Amino acid sequence: MSLIVQKFGGSSVSDADGIKRVARRVADTYRAGNQVVVVVSAMGDTTDDLLDLAAEVSSNPGASRELDMLLTAGERISMAALAMAVNDLGVQAKSFTGSQAGMITDGIHGSARLVEVNPDRIQRAIDEGDIAVIAGFQGMNRQTGDITTLGRGGSDTTAVALAAALGADVCEIYSDVDGVFSADPRVVSSAKKLDVITSEEMLEMAANGSKILHLRSVEYARRFNLKLHVRSSFSQLEGTIVIPDTPDDFVPNNLKEIPLEQPLISGVAHDRSQAKVTLIGVQDVPGSAAKVFGLLNEADINLDMIVQNVSTDRPDVTDITFTLPQDQGDKAVATLSLAKDDIDFAEIQYTDEVGKLSLVGAGMKANPGVSFKFFEALSSAGINIQMISTSEIRISVITELEKLDDAVRAVHTAFDLDTEGEATVYGGTGR
Amino acid sequence: MSLIVQKFGGSSVSDADGIKRVARRVADTYRAGNQVVVVVSAMGDTTDDLLDLAAEVSSNPGASRELDMLLTAGERISMAALAMAVNDLGVQAKSFTGSQAGMITDGIHGSARLVEVNPDRIQRAIDEGDIAVIAGFQGMNRQTGDITTLGRGGSDTTAVALAAALGADVCEIYSDVDGVFSADPRVVSSAKKLDVITSEEMLEMAANGSKILHLRSVEYARRFNLKLHVRSSFSQLEGTIVIPDTPDDFVPNNLKEIPLEQPLISGVAHDRSQAKVTLIGVQDVPGSAAKVFGLLNEADINLDMIVQNVSTDRPDVTDITFTLPQDQGDKAVATLSLAKDDIDFAEIQYTDEVGKLSLVGAGMKANPGVSFKFFEALSSAGINIQMISTSEIRISVITELEKLDDAVRAVHTAFDLDTEGEATVYGGTGR
Repeated sequence: MSLIVQKFGGSSVSDADGIKRVARRVADTYRAGNQVVVVVSAMGDTTDDLLDLAAEVSSNPGASRELDMLLTAGERISMAALAMAVNDLGVQAKSFTGSQAGMITDGIHGSARLVEVNPDRIQRAIDEGDIAVIAGFQGMNRQTGDITTLGRGGSDTTAVALAAALGADVCEIYSDVDGVFSADPRVVSSAKKLDVITSEEMLEMAANGSKILHLRSVEYARRFNLKLHVRSSFSQLEGTIVIPDTPDDFVPNNLKEIPLEQPLISGVAHDRSQAKVTLIGVQDVPGSAAKVFGLLNEADINLDMIVQNVSTDRPDVTDITFTLPQDQGDKAVATLSLAKDDIDFAEIQYTDEVGKLSLVGAGMKANPGVSFKFFEALSSAGINIQMISTSEIRISVITELEKLDDAVRAVHTAFDLDTEGEATVYGGTGR
Repeated sequence: MSLIVQKFGGSSVSDADGIKRVARRVADTYRAGNQVVVVVSAMGDTTDDLLDLAAEVSSNPGASRELDMLLTAGERISMAALAMAVNDLGVQAKSFTGSQAGMITDGIHGSARLVEVNPDRIQRAIDEGDIAVIAGFQGMNRQTGDITTLGRGGSDTTAVALAAALGADVCEIYSDVDGVFSADPRVVSSAKKLDVITSEEMLEMAANGSKILHLRSVEYARRFNLKLHVRSSFSQLEGTIVIPDTPDDFVPNNLKEIPLEQPLISGVAHDRSQAKVTLIGVQDVPGSAAKVFGLLNEADINLDMIVQNVSTDRPDVTDITFTLPQDQGDKAVATLSLAKDDIDFAEIQYTDEVGKLSLVGAGMKANPGVSFKFFEALSSAGINIQMISTSEIRISVITELEKLDDAVRAVHTAFDLDTEGEATVYGGTGR
């Protein structure tokens, strides 16, 4: 008997029919002889509706104790309705809030971090033969007993953390696409579904724009050596298995064949949510960069790529360029402008018309030809490269935003990732 | 400094504007120097919407653990939104679920009874200067930790129980009418608002069809010697004070003058939700009635009025008539029909075309002229009386349903209860 944790996003439970479809899948998994724990997000637009209500009654509905209390009503509705629908199929199910499921967090409302998972009640429920349905996205502050939410991708985190704490055999993450693709099927229609990807590669994909899994849940799964299975709730197809990076002591249960040789390249990720800031004419003295990044760090700004070049015509000054999430752009520019005299720079430039493209593959570690082929593909497609950064298994570039899709397709084709037929995309995206 | 518990029904918080209006009233009460605890029902149609969802996903969405979990999302939304709206006015408010507020119940889903109230967290919140906003209608099963709901009128019960446990000075019950009226203003437009009513009279009014307060909350208030103030959230008018029946040791704080002499009659209640069952030709031997009511008791049927007459033409048989809630009519008829041979009766008759009218007043104890005037008024209005029952402070009759409104108006006028002008009714009714 396997213990399977299944997580369904908002697009899978957007209405009563969706809930009934998910209930059938959950009941089928149970009837196949498995113990089943289900984590569910709020139904369709519920969270947006609750945010609208918050904006109507409050002039400043920012992250707060009360907003968390309000938003967690969304998962309460979906989990209770799903448990009722499963019960209606003749299989006993019980729903549990995050707090009842022992999801203990710190006290940062709106983006709480898990500090402990105590799934005693969940373990008891499945030991008694019940299906346990758990509200994703939510927890309880250990100190105060207040309800908290885990922020973006929170339901994935709930599922993975619970699967780890329960020692589940696999954590299945259901959404409206069939798995992890070699590129976003909305951009590259010939993108192919990956059967397997390592969690290291998945981390690079998630960190560089792939939205199929939230970075945090992949990190969590990797740390706890947990197998993820990313698949669609709208089809019965096998999805993508995300395997931990320790194949020596790890044998996935459901995976018949593990490829002995890593493929060279897993896929191409892209990201339209970045902005670029350039400080021009920074005095090229020790400590300048430290000042800049110290200030940005104090302002809680998350930097991504950083490049520094010496000006050729004026060797005493330098230009510093970095990228960051667009929604932090205003704050970054304001922070640096206020410190213009202290840092001593000539000018600040800002644009959010940039795109980021990343090529990800564990196989590139041992293959120096990858970067040559990568830049050749971009060059042939007439793509101008603004910034470059690399890791052992990733090359990323910043391009003009309007050239990004062309760039993704060019690289995807150059690395023979194209497949025949079109990838299926079923609907919107959940939380 | 007084401690005031305020309860707002669903009609008071039907939308964002309603929540903001309630928030202003709550904040005003706090700024006037009081400690304030607020109990709130689900917004407007939320509960009905959740029941619709339950019916969509389940073929049998009866009272259950999961339905309770689902329905309690309604108060979670309203309480969090209200706390946000109060915070927006610059007064610190915190919301608490029934479970967080220490509302401990038995395990009967859909109609749980309170077994304990532990308002430690609420006491701490108000001691710290916060307004505490609590979800009405819900509690937690002491044994299992499961979420329960208190059934009809549950939010009133939450408010009164919490007020008693906290030792509040008054529990204010807000709805969309200005208080308790001498008759339903929708039937008798000249009905007058009562300034004061005893809890004994209020109990009789509630038990006999008045919907302004739920019977259970009045019983609770009476037991704990708690003053209730029934008023409208749509106006600033003083409402109706419900005083405990022990005026000797009880001095309401807010009530300037207590009438030394009880008024003869407080009001006329009516009820359209009753049905009438008659067993014709029951063998007039000892134990017949015991059999009938024993069976009905086993079937959990709540009887109201009971009348037995000996047939004049056949002295060996008798007729037994009783009333009960319409929604239990089918079950009662089925139960008795199955036992026809055992009980030994000739025929069973059923109708839900009956109305019940009750005249309530503590003053009638000492005034034998009341019943004469009552029956004279009904007779003059051409109302046929089908059944009669009385208590020390109440006379009730069953009439044809279509004559009920005429009967209410006739009795109201006969006892000089009419006032000038029309009573204000603001909207729908909450839970």
